[in-house]
Amino acid sequence: MASLKRLLIGKPMETKRLKHEKLPKWKALAVFSSDALSSVAYATEEILLVLALLGTSVFFYSLPIAVAILVLLLLVTLSYRQIIYAFPSGGGAYVVARDHLGTKISLVAGAALMIDYILTVAVSISSGVAALTSAFPGLLPWKVELAVALVLLLMVLNLRGITESATVFAYPTYVFIGFVLVMIAVGGWQLWQEGWHGFTMHEHASTAHMFASGYSLFILLRAFSSGCSAMTGVEAISNGVPAFRPDSSKNAAITMGWMSTLLGVMFLGITVLAAGFGVTPTEHQTVISQIGRHVFGNGLLFYLFQLATMVILVLAANTSFAGFPQLTSIMAKDGFLPRSLAARGDRLVFSNGIILLSVLAIALIIAFHAKTHSLIPLYAVGVFLSFTIGQSGLIKKLWNREEGRKFGVLLTVGTGAVVTGIVTLVTMIAKFTQGAWIVIVAIPLFVWMFIRIHEHYKKLGEQLRLDEREWQQRGKLLKPKVIIPISGVSKVVAQSVQYARSISDDITALSIIFDEKDEQKLRQKWEKFYPDIPLKVIYSPYRTILSPLLEYITKAEKEADRAPVTVLLPQFIVKKWWHTFLHNQTAIILRFFLIMKKDVVIATLPYHLRE
Amino acid sequence: MASLKRLLIGKPMETKRLKHEKLPKWKALAVFSSDALSSVAYATEEILLVLALLGTSVFFYSLPIAVAILVLLLLVTLSYRQIIYAFPSGGGAYVVARDHLGTKISLVAGAALMIDYILTVAVSISSGVAALTSAFPGLLPWKVELAVALVLLLMVLNLRGITESATVFAYPTYVFIGFVLVMIAVGGWQLWQEGWHGFTMHEHASTAHMFASGYSLFILLRAFSSGCSAMTGVEAISNGVPAFRPDSSKNAAITMGWMSTLLGVMFLGITVLAAGFGVTPTEHQTVISQIGRHVFGNGLLFYLFQLATMVILVLAANTSFAGFPQLTSIMAKDGFLPRSLAARGDRLVFSNGIILLSVLAIALIIAFHAKTHSLIPLYAVGVFLSFTIGQSGLIKKLWNREEGRKFGVLLTVGTGAVVTGIVTLVTMIAKFTQGAWIVIVAIPLFVWMFIRIHEHYKKLGEQLRLDEREWQQRGKLLKPKVIIPISGVSKVVAQSVQYARSISDDITALSIIFDEKDEQKLRQKWEKFYPDIPLKVIYSPYRTILSPLLEYITKAEKEADRAPVTVLLPQFIVKKWWHTFLHNQTAIILRFFLIMKKDVVIATLPYHLRE
Repeated sequence: MASLKRLLIGKPMETKRLKHEKLPKWKALAVFSSDALSSVAYATEEILLVLALLGTSVFFYSLPIAVAILVLLLLVTLSYRQIIYAFPSGGGAYVVARDHLGTKISLVAGAALMIDYILTVAVSISSGVAALTSAFPGLLPWKVELAVALVLLLMVLNLRGITESATVFAYPTYVFIGFVLVMIAVGGWQLWQEGWHGFTMHEHASTAHMFASGYSLFILLRAFSSGCSAMTGVEAISNGVPAFRPDSSKNAAITMGWMSTLLGVMFLGITVLAAGFGVTPTEHQTVISQIGRHVFGNGLLFYLFQLATMVILVLAANTSFAGFPQLTSIMAKDGFLPRSLAARGDRLVFSNGIILLSVLAIALIIAFHAKTHSLIPLYAVGVFLSFTIGQSGLIKKLWNREEGRKFGVLLTVGTGAVVTGIVTLVTMIAKFTQGAWIVIVAIPLFVWMFIRIHEHYKKLGEQLRLDEREWQQRGKLLKPKVIIPISGVSKVVAQSVQYARSISDDITALSIIFDEKDEQKLRQKWEKFYPDIPLKVIYSPYRTILSPLLEYITKAEKEADRAPVTVLLPQFIVKKWWHTFLHNQTAIILRFFLIMKKDVVIATLPYHLRE
Repeated sequence: MASLKRLLIGKPMETKRLKHEKLPKWKALAVFSSDALSSVAYATEEILLVLALLGTSVFFYSLPIAVAILVLLLLVTLSYRQIIYAFPSGGGAYVVARDHLGTKISLVAGAALMIDYILTVAVSISSGVAALTSAFPGLLPWKVELAVALVLLLMVLNLRGITESATVFAYPTYVFIGFVLVMIAVGGWQLWQEGWHGFTMHEHASTAHMFASGYSLFILLRAFSSGCSAMTGVEAISNGVPAFRPDSSKNAAITMGWMSTLLGVMFLGITVLAAGFGVTPTEHQTVISQIGRHVFGNGLLFYLFQLATMVILVLAANTSFAGFPQLTSIMAKDGFLPRSLAARGDRLVFSNGIILLSVLAIALIIAFHAKTHSLIPLYAVGVFLSFTIGQSGLIKKLWNREEGRKFGVLLTVGTGAVVTGIVTLVTMIAKFTQGAWIVIVAIPLFVWMFIRIHEHYKKLGEQLRLDEREWQQRGKLLKPKVIIPISGVSKVVAQSVQYARSISDDITALSIIFDEKDEQKLRQKWEKFYPDIPLKVIYSPYRTILSPLLEYITKAEKEADRAPVTVLLPQFIVKKWWHTFLHNQTAIILRFFLIMKKDVVIATLPYHLRE
C-alpha cells in the first residue's frame, strides 16, 4: 500500500517548500484563462441544442443571443476589474462575502462555488471526451470510462502536487487559441468565398413572431442562459491576483481585459461560422469539431485541433483541482467543513479536498453519462450566483469606505451585480426542469450542512476547554479496577495478568461459558496458575459474550465507586494477512461496543504470533 | 442493526433446545430425497442438450443412456444400503474417509463435498427459476435476480433455524412425485393413443455408425455424464441415518430402496415421454415443462405443475443449507477451516456456514447467469468423487474388521466404488473444457488451503500453551512507561493524565508539531498545568505523525528496559453518526499501526461527547 502510494504520488515534501512563484502576464493569461476560454468548445453548441426545440428555422437566433452574451461579458469584465483593484490579495466570492456581507451569504457563496468547481470538472472532462470521440467515433461506447479515467489522472497528478504555475501548462492554451483564431480567419474567408449558406432569418421565425409566443420567448431565454456557460471561469484572474508580478493589480486587470477580448472574439467567431456553414448539433460530433472539419479538412490538422481542444478542456478541469481544495480548506479552517479538509498531505497539497472533488465529479459524470448537454443546466446557476455575491460584496465595501465613494465605480459594479443577478434568476427559471432544480435544492442543503458542522465544532470546543479552576478540583487517584476476559489459560492470558499486576492490585478474571459443564474444569486450571486472582464465571445460555460482559461491567463500575474500570483485551498480530480469518475477531467487536457503551478504558495487548 | 437482525432471524435460542426429532419413514423419504428426486427436472434436458451437438437425429440415444444411468443407480443404491448398515451414526464421505482412509483422502472428500453442496444450491435454484420462467416467460430478464433473491430467502430462513424435519416440507415432495407419476401415466396413455411420433433411430445414426466415430462416442459419453446429474443427492439418506426411528439402519435402507425406485421410474418416464413426444430443448422453456404442457394442456394444472417443480427444487437447495454448515463445522473442529465456522449463532445454527454457502452460491449463479446447463459440468465431478471415496472407506472398514469378511457385501460395494470411480474419470475428461477443469483445479486448492489452516492452528496451539515451569520464571513487576500523545491542553488530555497517574509514575507527554513556531506556546501552556510531567516535542517536517511516533517508541522501549510501554489514546464517542467525519481519525490509524509494528499496550480512553 505505502509503496503504491509513493509510486503514484512521490516522496513527501517539507512544509518549508510551500512558496509561490510570481507569473508574468503572458503566462498568467494561459494559467488562469483555460477555464474561461475552453468554454467556447461547447457554448455555441449548447445554444443551438436549445433552439433545436423550436426547429432549425430559428438557429439564426444564435447570433443575437451571442451578441447579448458579449454585452454581459463586457459588463462583468468591467466590474471584475474593480474587484481586482479592491481585493489585491485575491478573494473568491466566499472570502469577499464573509468579510463584507456576513456569514450566511458567504455560506451561500461557498456552496455555489463548491458546486461550480465540481461541475467545471464534470463539464470540461465530458466535453474533452466529446472532442476525442468526435475525432475517433470508435471510442464512443467508452465515453464514461474515458471521462472517469481522465478525472483519476488529474487526481493523481494533483495529489503529487503539480503547481498551477508550471510553464508546461501555458503552451496548450496558446495552441488552442492559435487554432481557434486561425479557424475563424480561414473559415471567415471561406464563408466570404462560398457565400452565407447556413441559417438565415425565416419569415415565420421573425422577431415579432418569436416574441408573440410565450413559449418561444421562454426557449430563447433558455438558449441565452445555456450560452452563458461561455462565461464560466472569467472570475479566475480576480482570485489569482497575488500570483501576478508587481504591480499585480494593474497587471491582473490588463490580463483580464485580454482574456475577455479573446473569449469574445472566439465565441462570436465560432457562433458566426456555425450559422454561416449551417452546422447542426449531432450526437456523435460536436459543433466545434464540425466547423474544424469544414475548415481544416479531414486531415492531420483536424486531428491536432481536436487534440488541442481536449487538452485545454482537461486543463480547465485542472483549475478546479487548485480552486476547490483551496476553498474547502478555508471553509474548514472557519469550521464549516470537516477539519481534515484543511490538512496538507505529504506533498503539501490539500489531499482530502482533491479526493473529495474527484469523487463528486466522477459521481456526476456517471450519473449524467458524461453528456455535456445534460450537465450544463446545473452549471450556470452556481456561477452567476457567485458573480452576483462577489460584486455585491464589493459594493458594500466601496459604500462603507472612508475615503469617499467613487460613483463611477459603484455604477459599474452595481450594474454588473444587478445584471448577473437577473441572469441567475433567468437561469433558475428557464432551466428549472432541466436540472437547475438540483442546484436550487443543493445550495440550501449545503448551507444547512455547513451550519450544523459549525455548531458541532463550537460545542465541542466549549466541552473540551480546560480551565484552571476545574482542573484543580480533580479527586484523589484510585488504582484502576482491572477486568481480564479469558476463555482458558494460555500464554496470552499470562501476558495479560502480568500487565494487569503492573498497573493495579484489583484484578478479576472473567470467563463467559456456553455450557455449564465447562466451569469446573476451568476453575481447577485457573486456581493452579493464579490462586490469588478471583475468577468470575458467567453462563450465557444464548451464547453471546457482549451482553453478560456489559452487565458485569455495569455492576463493576458501581462497586468501583470512582476508580477507573480497565478491560484488558489481547489482540493477535498475525504474520500473514489471511491468518486474520482464522482467529476469532471477538476482541475487536467487544472493543468497539465496550468503548461505545461504557466509560471504561480498553487496554489492547498485542500478542505477536511467531508464524 | 440489532433490531433488523431480530426481525429477520428472531429471538436468540438457548443451547439446551438443541435436540433431534426422530422421523417416520414416509416423512424421512420426503425430507432426504428432495435433492435426488428434483434432479429429474433437469437431467433429461441435459442429456438432450449434449446430444444436440450431433443433431436431433441422435436424440433417440437418450433412451439407452437413461437405461445405463439406471443400472448405475441400482449399483450405487445397493452399495449405499451397505454404508447405511456400516455407519449407523451417519457419516458423509468426509467422516468415513477421515476414520478409515487417512487425513489426505478425507480432505479431498471434504473439498468435493463442499463444492457439491455449493453447486446443489446454484443448480437447483437456477433450475427452479427456469421452471418459473417456463410458465411466465415475462420473468426471463430477471432470472439472475430471482435466483439471488431465492438464495437470500433460504439464507434468512436457515439463519432463523428451520429444521429439516419440519413436516411442512414433506408435502411439496409428495405433490411433485404425484404430479410426475400422473404425468407419466397420462402421457404414456396419450403416447399409446397417438403413436410414437418423436425421435426414432435414424439410419445414419445407427449404433455401429456412432461408435465408429471417436467424436460421436465422446459426445455420447458426455451426454451420459450429464445425465448422471440425475443421481446427485442419492447419498442424503446415508448421511441422515440417526434421524430415522429405530431400527434406524433398517428403516433407512428401506427408504433408500423406495427413493431409488421412485427416482428410476420418474427419470425413465420423463426421458421416454420426451423422446416419444419429440421434445427438443429451447432457451425459453424447459423439457419437463414442455412435456407438462403437452400432457396437462395450457391450463391451471400446468401452472401448478411448474410451481410444484420450482418448490421441490428450492427444497433441494435447502438440503445444502443443512449439509454444508454441518460439514464445515466438523472440518472446523478438526482444524481444517476457520474456527468461526464451528460456532453456533443466536438461533443454534452454524450461522457463518450458512452465510458462506449463500455467498458462494450467489457468486456462482451470477458468474454463470443462472443457467443450469452451464453449471452442470461442474456438478458431477464432486458428487461422483465423494461416492467413490465413501465406498472405498467402507471397503477398508469391512476388510479390516475382526468378525470376518463378507465377500458378497465386499463385491457389491467394490463394484459400486469401481464404477463410480470410472464415472468420475469419464466426467472429468468428457466435460473438462465445459467447466469440469474448474473443479479439478479447485479441489487441490481447497485441500492445500485446509492443510495450511491446520498447520497454522497447530503452531498457534504450541505457541500459546502455558507450562508451569515457564510460568514460574516470570520476571519482577515493573510499572509501565506511559506515553501520552497530545496536540494541545484540553479536558481530553486532563482525563488521560489522570488515568496515567493512576497506573504509573513514569509518564511522558509527546507532541508532534508541523511548524517549529508552535513549540514555545505549547510548552508554556503545558508547564502551567502539568509542571511535573515532562513534555517531549518533535518537529515533523513532512507532517506525518506515525513515523516520529514509532521512532520515539523504539527509543522509549530501549530505555524502558523490560517495563511495558503503554500509549494512551483518547477516542471521541460521538452522539450522531455523521459527527465521526468531523473528527480527526488519527487515533484509530495510529492505534492500528502501533499495535501491528510495536510491542506496546494501547490504552483507549473513551471521551463521550455530550452532543
